[in-house]
Amino acid sequence: MKVRVHVTLKDGVLDPQGKAIHRALETLGFAGVRDARQGKVIDLELACADEAGAREQVDRMCRQLLANTVIEDYTVEFV
Amino acid sequence: MKVRVHVTLKDGVLDPQGKAIHRALETLGFAGVRDARQGKVIDLELACADEAGAREQVDRMCRQLLANTVIEDYTVEFV
Repeated sequence: MKVRVHVTLKDGVLDPQGKAIHRALETLGFAGVRDARQGKVIDLELACADEAGAREQVDRMCRQLLANTVIEDYTVEFV
Repeated sequence: MKVRVHVTLKDGVLDPQGKAIHRALETLGFAGVRDARQGKVIDLELACADEAGAREQVDRMCRQLLANTVIEDYTVEFV
């Protein structure tokens, strides 16, 4: 079972990587960019077959390792 | 217009961050993980209103800055 986890900074948290991308795009001549934010995507392949169990397991993975829930949000998506 | 870009390593390219995540998950007791790969997600907000123009523009951004197309794939998604 394949799972895609997105980890993104919460709104309001400073995002220096996003700012660097924004500025670099402007320097390259892309004028119409209002905002840029960067996050992580983690693709997992799980042996687990039932979706409810997998969701609960991935949720624990996010809280324990993949995301810093003080400043980051995460979403779990089955692909 | 909001656009989400995923940048992931091509299959076969070594992914040390993914490997570190995989090992850390096993250390934490998550036994059923077969594979883990890490990529980047970039959320852009564009002033451009027409989707075809935006897609062409974001495609150029990816090739010029956001992705290293020798070792990375990218996908563009309108959200």
